[in-house]
Amino acid sequence: MGLSSALMRATQIAPKRVALRFGDQTFTWAEFGERAPRIAGGLAALGVSKGDRVAMLGLNNARYSELFHCVPWAGGIVVPLNWRWSEVELAFALDDCQPRVLFADAQMMPMAKTLCETRPSVCLISMADVREPDLPHFDDLLDAAPIADLALTGDDLYGIFYTGGTTGFSKGVMLSHRNVLSGATVAQREGYWREDDIYVVAAPYYHASGTWPLISMLAAAGTSIVLPAFDAGAALRAIEEHKATTSLLVPTMIQMVIDHPNFAKTDLSSLKTIVYGASPITEALLSRALAALPNAEFVQAYGMTELSPQIAALHHRHLLGQHREIGRHRAAGRACYGMEMKIVDEDDKELPRGEVGEIVARGESVMLGYWRRLEETENALRNGWMHTGDGGRMDQDGFVYVVDRIKDMIISGGENVYSVEVENVIAQHPAVHSCVVVGIPHEKWVEQVHAIVILREGALTSEDDLIAFARGQLAGFKVPRSVTFRSEPFPLSPANKILKRELRAPYWAGRSSRLA
Amino acid sequence: MGLSSALMRATQIAPKRVALRFGDQTFTWAEFGERAPRIAGGLAALGVSKGDRVAMLGLNNARYSELFHCVPWAGGIVVPLNWRWSEVELAFALDDCQPRVLFADAQMMPMAKTLCETRPSVCLISMADVREPDLPHFDDLLDAAPIADLALTGDDLYGIFYTGGTTGFSKGVMLSHRNVLSGATVAQREGYWREDDIYVVAAPYYHASGTWPLISMLAAAGTSIVLPAFDAGAALRAIEEHKATTSLLVPTMIQMVIDHPNFAKTDLSSLKTIVYGASPITEALLSRALAALPNAEFVQAYGMTELSPQIAALHHRHLLGQHREIGRHRAAGRACYGMEMKIVDEDDKELPRGEVGEIVARGESVMLGYWRRLEETENALRNGWMHTGDGGRMDQDGFVYVVDRIKDMIISGGENVYSVEVENVIAQHPAVHSCVVVGIPHEKWVEQVHAIVILREGALTSEDDLIAFARGQLAGFKVPRSVTFRSEPFPLSPANKILKRELRAPYWAGRSSRLA
Repeated sequence: MGLSSALMRATQIAPKRVALRFGDQTFTWAEFGERAPRIAGGLAALGVSKGDRVAMLGLNNARYSELFHCVPWAGGIVVPLNWRWSEVELAFALDDCQPRVLFADAQMMPMAKTLCETRPSVCLISMADVREPDLPHFDDLLDAAPIADLALTGDDLYGIFYTGGTTGFSKGVMLSHRNVLSGATVAQREGYWREDDIYVVAAPYYHASGTWPLISMLAAAGTSIVLPAFDAGAALRAIEEHKATTSLLVPTMIQMVIDHPNFAKTDLSSLKTIVYGASPITEALLSRALAALPNAEFVQAYGMTELSPQIAALHHRHLLGQHREIGRHRAAGRACYGMEMKIVDEDDKELPRGEVGEIVARGESVMLGYWRRLEETENALRNGWMHTGDGGRMDQDGFVYVVDRIKDMIISGGENVYSVEVENVIAQHPAVHSCVVVGIPHEKWVEQVHAIVILREGALTSEDDLIAFARGQLAGFKVPRSVTFRSEPFPLSPANKILKRELRAPYWAGRSSRLA
Repeated sequence: MGLSSALMRATQIAPKRVALRFGDQTFTWAEFGERAPRIAGGLAALGVSKGDRVAMLGLNNARYSELFHCVPWAGGIVVPLNWRWSEVELAFALDDCQPRVLFADAQMMPMAKTLCETRPSVCLISMADVREPDLPHFDDLLDAAPIADLALTGDDLYGIFYTGGTTGFSKGVMLSHRNVLSGATVAQREGYWREDDIYVVAAPYYHASGTWPLISMLAAAGTSIVLPAFDAGAALRAIEEHKATTSLLVPTMIQMVIDHPNFAKTDLSSLKTIVYGASPITEALLSRALAALPNAEFVQAYGMTELSPQIAALHHRHLLGQHREIGRHRAAGRACYGMEMKIVDEDDKELPRGEVGEIVARGESVMLGYWRRLEETENALRNGWMHTGDGGRMDQDGFVYVVDRIKDMIISGGENVYSVEVENVIAQHPAVHSCVVVGIPHEKWVEQVHAIVILREGALTSEDDLIAFARGQLAGFKVPRSVTFRSEPFPLSPANKILKRELRAPYWAGRSSRLA
């Protein structure tokens, strides 16, 4: 069963319900159901047929939203592109997936034109509010003769989702219709994003945190309130005005909402469920959020694009009382309904409870693979499990705790050292602004723990002082054996993650590393 | 993903939780997880390998329950048989599915021995509490060396479920692992049979109303309280003693529970959700049930074995208030999450809202087909939709109302007549004990409405009187043109459904009927 089935069901069971609001535009499910065959007809008239890629570039808007269910109706494959990317990055993705059509909004139109100039096979279409002469527009598609749904199946490719990836050029994650519908199913079995929900779309459509809830609300026949991009003030207004019941927010968004000057005067009593994820939440922020929104339930979703995306859930009750006392609120959660998780060693053998290894996952929402990257696909999915690249351990009750990215783990003298743990200690030193811990070559231990530190302005300390500071709080094998200081900022990925790989590389030049 | 994945997840996330209680036997999920590889090892030692059928015959018990997750672990296919069947019916099923093993309990052992005497290829194993000398026993399986899960996939066959079927010999419904897991998913997305539920198993394992919740509770890692067979007093005791939260009950069971002398003195406050289905509920019983259990939510599940089994849901709110005023409580429900329903004519063309046709359904829980019955399979699944054989209509909000079995509909002079509607009227006549309405040949109208009536003892009436009585309450084309009286009871199927086919047949002898 493909995504069109979900659209047809929504049209059938909730024809009068609002499917989507964007600014002053409103569409019911009946309207979406009536428009989809025409928009798909327009795509078909442009030559889009089964298996063709349709790329999208821009802020969230109503037209963009519709493409997620109209492109597959015509047999096409959606490819939402990251509007924060540079021209080089966008050119890479376009050449990688070779779309037949590229939709762009007003903001991204200059970039899109540049990209299409040298790529004549790509048909550029505007999804801007204001039409440009001589440029085909989304709304023209509606004039086409409606076509029947191409009836893609669960096994057919639904979309290619480029991951930010801090490990070089982005990879296109291939998710099937079954994958993305399983993603919706996971959410609904865990108890959220249901028929009576009003969802505020705050995350961008080029990211799983934007598309996952959108597709879930389609599968639920619920209502989405779409914002062009995240803005704490706009999110607060939207929640109050539309009595929104739920949203997925990454921790920094939660912080910005709570810190916003209008927070206290906004009526947020309609909020029932806040799903958070994509990056770890600090204990302090979690406590603030629970106190600031006492009527909402918080659920942590752990996962990744390759897992459509949620694999584990940590529910509100796990953040409180006895669970909190034993530190459960720091867990990523337990395997969701219909999913499997385990912790394995380097040979994919399951480790006993409590031991740290790689978190692997299995289930109907595991990606088909990486677009045209057979080797990476085989490696990620070896032995039938998705290898998350996250290091973690599982407790006796099946709760998984993420300790580090596997690639950021240091193996020194046979002992695992989690760079994050060491960084958290060094960062507490009053002179330290920020710090990164990596493994560098060591003749005897293979790797030695090494800290790279940026000092606060005007602060002073020494290598010996920092090592002594760390020794007071960490087991001997975790204490850095060496420290270097740098003045320039750490290199960042487009998603603002520190590129540890680049910091590690100079030390390993000409040597073989287990990460090479 | 196969059923074993669900068992492994339950073992992981809820090791200490009670998985199942039967009498004084209790098993946690950890215990089930530890036993399954041994029981599967025992099955493998008996020669059970991938694709082999394993039949079960008996009342519900703990060992029987375990077979539902241990047989697939060994690669086998479960075949629960109806213990109410005659020897002829059981022999038919055994010869149809040719199992390698037959498990039987104490009550069914004499029958099982008779059946196996002439079928030496079937290995008979006891699941009785008391061992018989020289008869292999379920508990022996536990002595085998544990084996690794055979890792059946979602597409592999999970079980063959024989349907009672009032249309001749029973057909074996083939459900895949994906089918039965989708059945659990449907329930959980609709909001019931979840992790914190305690389910009372009152329905027999040879019926979807028994296996569906059992598998759903496995997928939820919840708790099942198993009764050997339905008994209103035992069900009441089990709910009170174990603080049960939910059960699936067919309407006659609900009636027996409410009418039981212990009903008023039993504490049923733990009951949160009662799912009802399998046959229509009368308005009077629904009202009584809502009043008698004011703290429980009632959900109607509409479906059939071929749909794993639920396709539509009618929720508690649809039984009350505005919904009730417009008669929504008489609907079968709306398409469940992840499913599609429509009403089609004889050419499978979708009919406008309000028009009566056949109810068809689509989704991941539609059966693979009927075991070794290609023609019936192709007919049932033609054009990619499961044809339910139920006549129904859909309202503007997607609610489906069942009006009759398609085969029991009469088409007279181009007008559809629903036999059930006419029967309900005739049955109100004071002289009538029971009545069946069928279509018989008519030169001009193709079919004419004909009533077959059994009178109350000592009562008297005439054909003309009954026709006049019906005329007062039915449109002209629905009024029977002829009536015959009979004294012997109507022929019944093993599931106690009236065999209209047999009553209709003599009238059509030597003629072609649209139902031939």
